[in-house]
Amino acid sequence: MTTVAVPEPSADLLRLATGVRQASTLLGQTEDHQRQDALASMANALERHADRIVAANREDLEQASAEGLAPALMARLKLDSGKLTGAIEGVRQVAGLPDPLGVRQLHRELDDGLVLERVSVPLGVLGVIFEARPDAVIQIASLAIRSGNGAILKGGSEANRTNRAVIEALKDGLVTSAVSEDALALLTTRQESLALLRLDGLVDLIIPRGSNELVRFIQDNTRIPVLGHADGVCHLYVDAQVDMTQALRIAIDSKTQYPAACNAIETLLVHQDSAPAFLAEAIPAFRAAGVRLLGDARSQALGVEDAASEDDWGREYLDLILAVKVVSDLEEALEHIRRYGSRHTEAIASTDTATAERFLRAVDSAGVYHNCSTRFADGFRYGFGAEVGISTQTLPPRGPVGLEGLVTYRYRLRGDGHIAADFAEGRRCFSHRDLAA
Amino acid sequence: MTTVAVPEPSADLLRLATGVRQASTLLGQTEDHQRQDALASMANALERHADRIVAANREDLEQASAEGLAPALMARLKLDSGKLTGAIEGVRQVAGLPDPLGVRQLHRELDDGLVLERVSVPLGVLGVIFEARPDAVIQIASLAIRSGNGAILKGGSEANRTNRAVIEALKDGLVTSAVSEDALALLTTRQESLALLRLDGLVDLIIPRGSNELVRFIQDNTRIPVLGHADGVCHLYVDAQVDMTQALRIAIDSKTQYPAACNAIETLLVHQDSAPAFLAEAIPAFRAAGVRLLGDARSQALGVEDAASEDDWGREYLDLILAVKVVSDLEEALEHIRRYGSRHTEAIASTDTATAERFLRAVDSAGVYHNCSTRFADGFRYGFGAEVGISTQTLPPRGPVGLEGLVTYRYRLRGDGHIAADFAEGRRCFSHRDLAA
Repeated sequence: MTTVAVPEPSADLLRLATGVRQASTLLGQTEDHQRQDALASMANALERHADRIVAANREDLEQASAEGLAPALMARLKLDSGKLTGAIEGVRQVAGLPDPLGVRQLHRELDDGLVLERVSVPLGVLGVIFEARPDAVIQIASLAIRSGNGAILKGGSEANRTNRAVIEALKDGLVTSAVSEDALALLTTRQESLALLRLDGLVDLIIPRGSNELVRFIQDNTRIPVLGHADGVCHLYVDAQVDMTQALRIAIDSKTQYPAACNAIETLLVHQDSAPAFLAEAIPAFRAAGVRLLGDARSQALGVEDAASEDDWGREYLDLILAVKVVSDLEEALEHIRRYGSRHTEAIASTDTATAERFLRAVDSAGVYHNCSTRFADGFRYGFGAEVGISTQTLPPRGPVGLEGLVTYRYRLRGDGHIAADFAEGRRCFSHRDLAA
Repeated sequence: MTTVAVPEPSADLLRLATGVRQASTLLGQTEDHQRQDALASMANALERHADRIVAANREDLEQASAEGLAPALMARLKLDSGKLTGAIEGVRQVAGLPDPLGVRQLHRELDDGLVLERVSVPLGVLGVIFEARPDAVIQIASLAIRSGNGAILKGGSEANRTNRAVIEALKDGLVTSAVSEDALALLTTRQESLALLRLDGLVDLIIPRGSNELVRFIQDNTRIPVLGHADGVCHLYVDAQVDMTQALRIAIDSKTQYPAACNAIETLLVHQDSAPAFLAEAIPAFRAAGVRLLGDARSQALGVEDAASEDDWGREYLDLILAVKVVSDLEEALEHIRRYGSRHTEAIASTDTATAERFLRAVDSAGVYHNCSTRFADGFRYGFGAEVGISTQTLPPRGPVGLEGLVTYRYRLRGDGHIAADFAEGRRCFSHRDLAA
């Protein structure tokens, strides 16, 4: 547990959150085309405000550079006109996604004239806390509005000027739409973003996009449900029966295609029967790709130079480092994943379908893959159009979370004077007859 | 926040929970008929052990009586042979419910030979904490096994002997089935049930069935998701356009059919146009039913004897007490519900379909009803066969939670050497083509 104190919300914050809540209640009752129009207006407004946004971003970049922000963070902070154009295109794509609201999931007659339905509805208000990535503000705001949710956003302070300019543009767009501009709000101080955690009853879901420490701190300090994952310790298991060339291709892609992503592998498990031949090819290939390997005793005996410590098995490197272990059989691989994995995404490379299917059934992660890269664990790649993040929680929404993960459901029951006593006392019986969708 | 300290799990508790987790991993891979057989064995074993269970319950009752347990709690604690027969019948009914596992929710080709599916899978291990109601142990254990989940159960200490006898019987039943008896475990000390809250990674969902204080304490002291509701402050709104006789029938049933239930109404809102006529009939009817009414100034002017204080609007009486308020219009009713409701279940009595539909769209509760009693908010009545409880959380599972609420999903992706770099670098394109279910 950390010692940072979570302050009580200020009167200003309560007023702001109440305003977002009220706007979201109306937003939740809008029609599909009204929300599509709102996104179109938001995209148009971003185009109108483009120069102002890019200029604000240049100021943020100058200050961050003067303060010595790391190059990787500078790259994320940057929002030039090319990146902005891409983000605006993203808003229009989200507008075109199917409406996640009003989907009837259940339709059942309970008795003559007493009909139950379960219908998808928005969550209400999202609280989103993220690092200095201004394009994320645009993406999350468009997903929120498309799914009928209000959003209170808090971006990294390095991006404060950019975020303000972006939110101003988005609100300016909403003004000419059926959605109130109050549905979006930006927080700019750290105190406010901490107090956001206390807004249960006003905020329905917290979405943290940041470090593991940030996610854990939030989970420990709020009653509001938190969507997110603390770690992405993904595994690739190379089976005894395997197409070596294909397995190596998958291993290299899973580790190196974007090593800072949560869906990159951190540990490679290799069956003892394929280990000599596989590692003979893999070790030089990883070396050529700039990957440092850390191995157990058996993989070291086969040429991995450095030793992995016990701590390495559960570590998320997010870097060009890979832990390697030789296992005696599938069971040992499964047990290793159970013990050290983070239930994000695991893959098996195998030409034996029976073994692969056992792996797919036994591994309890959000994604379990056969003969493909773990890097596919992503909302765009799954065809969701966009994502707010990837959840490693067990309860839904799990895995990459798109629009569908931002809705819940409500039961509606329509009767004609039906009372429970009639059923409790045997005068009437439930029919429980499912009706056409 | 409360000051009770949550202890670290003991080595014994960790061993027990690890055992349940391992058993649940295998249980999650069983076939439908194997879990049905396991429930049949559990039911048969309960019959074989019936005398022992009833005798253990008699001892618990004697001790509780000597210690002066309240009559309502004594009634819940009691498990005579009639109640036990009913509970055993319940196990067989749960066996007959459709399998919630292995349901394919999504089936999509991402590229030639790269196919994604989303399949329902168990949550893993449930941690269930409840009051001294031994029939609940039987019901929850059968729901857990049917849905492929292990369960760690902690019942009220007044029922310790009964719970031990019940769990022994259930485990004895599992011995002759494909499901390991280790999938079920009983905790008997308060220390253990507190330490259960620290078993993140081993327990996937906490289900508290008890007082509001218990639920809040648990929510504040665990990182594990908690299923449950803290309050059930349900409303009935009697519209201006209304069938008075029907509205009164619904009001009386919603309040009195079982006032201790969370789905009983605590507040009656009446439109000012119908209030004089409606309250003229309702006040004597509620008096005859033994209900004490507490009103605002306008309803007092129409005959409600006692005044409601500001605190009454958010109070869950769970008793024959009802707060009454006259409102000027639908908007005022909606605003009152938004402000004081607990998002459990609200109903409108109205002959005006347009008004009723506005209510059904605007009220953000797990259940929103038109012209029927709030008492229908229940898993059995919805046709779910059984329920673990009713959730007032916004995120799914919401409302009455049956088998479907005890499962999650997993993404399975099967490829043939597919790597992300090919798509990132434009050599391949996603097809995102939905396939037949």
